[in-house]
Amino acid sequence: MNIAVFAGSFDPITRGHESIIRRAIPLFDKIIIAIGHNADKTGYFPLENRLKWIKEVFKDEASISVESYNGLTVDFCKEKKAGYLIRGLRTSADFEFERSVAQVNSRLNPELETVFMLTLPEHVMITSSIVREVHRNGGDIRQFIPEKIQI
Amino acid sequence: MNIAVFAGSFDPITRGHESIIRRAIPLFDKIIIAIGHNADKTGYFPLENRLKWIKEVFKDEASISVESYNGLTVDFCKEKKAGYLIRGLRTSADFEFERSVAQVNSRLNPELETVFMLTLPEHVMITSSIVREVHRNGGDIRQFIPEKIQI
Amino acid sequence: MNIAVFAGSFDPITRGHESIIRRAIPLFDKIIIAIGHNADKTGYFPLENRLKWIKEVFKDEASISVESYNGLTVDFCKEKKAGYLIRGLRTSADFEFERSVAQVNSRLNPELETVFMLTLPEHVMITSSIVREVHRNGGDIRQFIPEKIQI
Amino acid sequence: MNIAVFAGSFDPITRGHESIIRRAIPLFDKIIIAIGHNADKTGYFPLENRLKWIKEVFKDEASISVESYNGLTVDFCKEKKAGYLIRGLRTSADFEFERSVAQVNSRLNPELETVFMLTLPEHVMITSSIVREVHRNGGDIRQFIPEKIQI
Amino acid sequence: MNIAVFAGSFDPITRGHESIIRRAIPLFDKIIIAIGHNADKTGYFPLENRLKWIKEVFKDEASISVESYNGLTVDFCKEKKAGYLIRGLRTSADFEFERSVAQVNSRLNPELETVFMLTLPEHVMITSSIVREVHRNGGDIRQFIPEKIQI
Amino acid sequence: MNIAVFAGSFDPITRGHESIIRRAIPLFDKIIIAIGHNADKTGYFPLENRLKWIKEVFKDEASISVESYNGLTVDFCKEKKAGYLIRGLRTSADFEFERSVAQVNSRLNPELETVFMLTLPEHVMITSSIVREVHRNGGDIRQFIPEKIQI
Repeated sequence: MNIAVFAGSFDPITRGHESIIRRAIPLFDKIIIAIGHNADKTGYFPLENRLKWIKEVFKDEASISVESYNGLTVDFCKEKKAGYLIRGLRTSADFEFERSVAQVNSRLNPELETVFMLTLPEHVMITSSIVREVHRNGGDIRQFIPEKIQI
Repeated sequence: MNIAVFAGSFDPITRGHESIIRRAIPLFDKIIIAIGHNADKTGYFPLENRLKWIKEVFKDEASISVESYNGLTVDFCKEKKAGYLIRGLRTSADFEFERSVAQVNSRLNPELETVFMLTLPEHVMITSSIVREVHRNGGDIRQFIPEKIQI
Repeated sequence: MNIAVFAGSFDPITRGHESIIRRAIPLFDKIIIAIGHNADKTGYFPLENRLKWIKEVFKDEASISVESYNGLTVDFCKEKKAGYLIRGLRTSADFEFERSVAQVNSRLNPELETVFMLTLPEHVMITSSIVREVHRNGGDIRQFIPEKIQI
Repeated sequence: MNIAVFAGSFDPITRGHESIIRRAIPLFDKIIIAIGHNADKTGYFPLENRLKWIKEVFKDEASISVESYNGLTVDFCKEKKAGYLIRGLRTSADFEFERSVAQVNSRLNPELETVFMLTLPEHVMITSSIVREVHRNGGDIRQFIPEKIQI
Repeated sequence: MNIAVFAGSFDPITRGHESIIRRAIPLFDKIIIAIGHNADKTGYFPLENRLKWIKEVFKDEASISVESYNGLTVDFCKEKKAGYLIRGLRTSADFEFERSVAQVNSRLNPELETVFMLTLPEHVMITSSIVREVHRNGGDIRQFIPEKIQI
Repeated sequence: MNIAVFAGSFDPITRGHESIIRRAIPLFDKIIIAIGHNADKTGYFPLENRLKWIKEVFKDEASISVESYNGLTVDFCKEKKAGYLIRGLRTSADFEFERSVAQVNSRLNPELETVFMLTLPEHVMITSSIVREVHRNGGDIRQFIPEKIQI
């Protein structure tokens, strides 16, 4: 059984995340969307909301579950018997960062493979950090987050 | 009438900024240099000084005005009836970041166009952040800031 | 009077080119779309067709004219009294190349300024070279070229 | 059934290619390694040899087959009922190019998804073009090509 | 006498740092490994430990000394009569950053030359920041730091 | 004795090349500027001229010699007992290419180290290929080539 983890802070989930995950569904038997968090660093949106929003978005997808974790992503994957990490790639700056992370993960757990999918052109400019910035300044974020949720 | 906004924190204004703005003057009827700031995050140099320095540099340019704003840049542009944002490009890392910001601005206000000009080769290494770092450590920043001002 | 040149081989013109030019119209009094060519290197599509297609696309735009030239772009600009070059930016690889060209042009003619605009996200993947590749292999290129023309 | 195509010119196959394909095996029911070629442009190594070498490398992998094709990759995928393209990513320059190709393919066939995997650090410098260059100059290419073959 | 400085925060020293320094030894008469620090910003590991670890790693290298400094790197180099800065390059993102720093240093002290060496492929993913992240989460960092030390 | 090779096609030598080499002189006992060429691919300028120009530029530098070679650069270095390759870095696109070449050279000859120096900001836009392009179109290339030579 091919189990994949899509890890992130999802603060908040964006249309970019949603699209990557939907396109990954046919490739894996099970996908765990995992919100990494730690006690010291609280997010912009509360963890419970972030979990709730993701569950709402994917409530009709049987192979998708949502969890939070702390500690190393590789340890979470091992615990979940996940052999794959899914990552979206937006830009070449993204790529350089993602490559380092994936290579370190692969050194920490050689069994863990990272699979990348492309962010759609119309989502390339969307990052959680930009969504927070717009939200903080009272702008309208609806076009950046999944249609199914309200923030 | 073509009105453009050149927004930034200008903490402090550099020779790179100055050169971009001077070269943009013939393209626009009016250019507003706009210092974005927010209550929570004070700069390295006080806002009043940053405003004063920019006014000093461009005091002989009739089409240039200087203001501060808070909130989203797109909202400031709308309020000022500005149809253009001017940005300088230094490096390809710059470009990736600027492209995301411009694309988000264009999604928030499709009427707003971002126009880019190249930083001159001799200014490519100058950023406000590097100027602050040199200043903080007691180095001489005169060659990095406009000739007309003293910091 | 602000005169700009948008130079390229336009082999063929794409939706990306079209969009950049349309968005540049309000910034300049006159825009010359200039097809660079040289005797030794014939294009994939004949020069006459490339000229004809561009004229067709912009036939309703009074400020736009279309010409071909050979020799250095800076010399063509001087002859046309153009003070600006317009360029589209797609990716950071683009940027590195465009920066070199613009800096060389600026060294050959310090009066000539290059102004950059962003390719729209939905056009980022379109280059003339990719359009030719699809065409050569019998694929349908209609979604990549301006709606007004047939190739 | 998930069918994937790994297309390229494989002139010749490298250790980088081999590693990507081996790591992709568990993800797909069937992988077709497809050598794109066209009548006008012969490779450095004859097509038959390139096919033979790949078959040799993967002769023990039941889910892998090797074919050659001409025309558009998207058409070949449609013919083979393949829903996925597999690509390796080495560097950020690679990424920019691969993104354009994947986005064009996705425009030509929206059902076709491109899945990327990372080249291992020790293979990042290996490209077919560098292998040919070393071979042409009489250098030893054995450390760059799969262990199972001799060229 | 060619004196070089290899400056950084070394929080902690990695195998990547170690390899760059070892390969630089034959090029210079003397290499000073210099830990930049400032009173306001304490590191993850205490300064004394960072100094001790580096001394341990290079205790058999007569041409290498280890020091800490605060203030500008160019001032430290002048004080030490060092004409060279040594830097490792991992990725193109690294390069853009390093180029800016080197160009600013060269503007502050035109006598100071920066010499770059490549991080080995198997070390490209290792940064001090990633080592700290793994350490903070209880992971095993031994494969990322020099063999001779224990952290 | 530290012997370094600065290899290239130098078609023609530029101010960028000249500056890198001059700054490398104090680092090495001997620098061999080596023009790689092969029988099949003649350059834009004849090999004899390219050799003559470089000799002219460095005629007062006792540690510099000029040669041509064919075959692999690593083999030439071995023959000359050179332990270092010197390379200039202009842009991040450059860097990605240079890294691959250096890593392959290091695989072919693990004793050979590549040392990189930065192109000066005012030379970043200068490449031999751009100089040829300007020359071919009758432009003035004097500001791009060493002051001491005439082409």
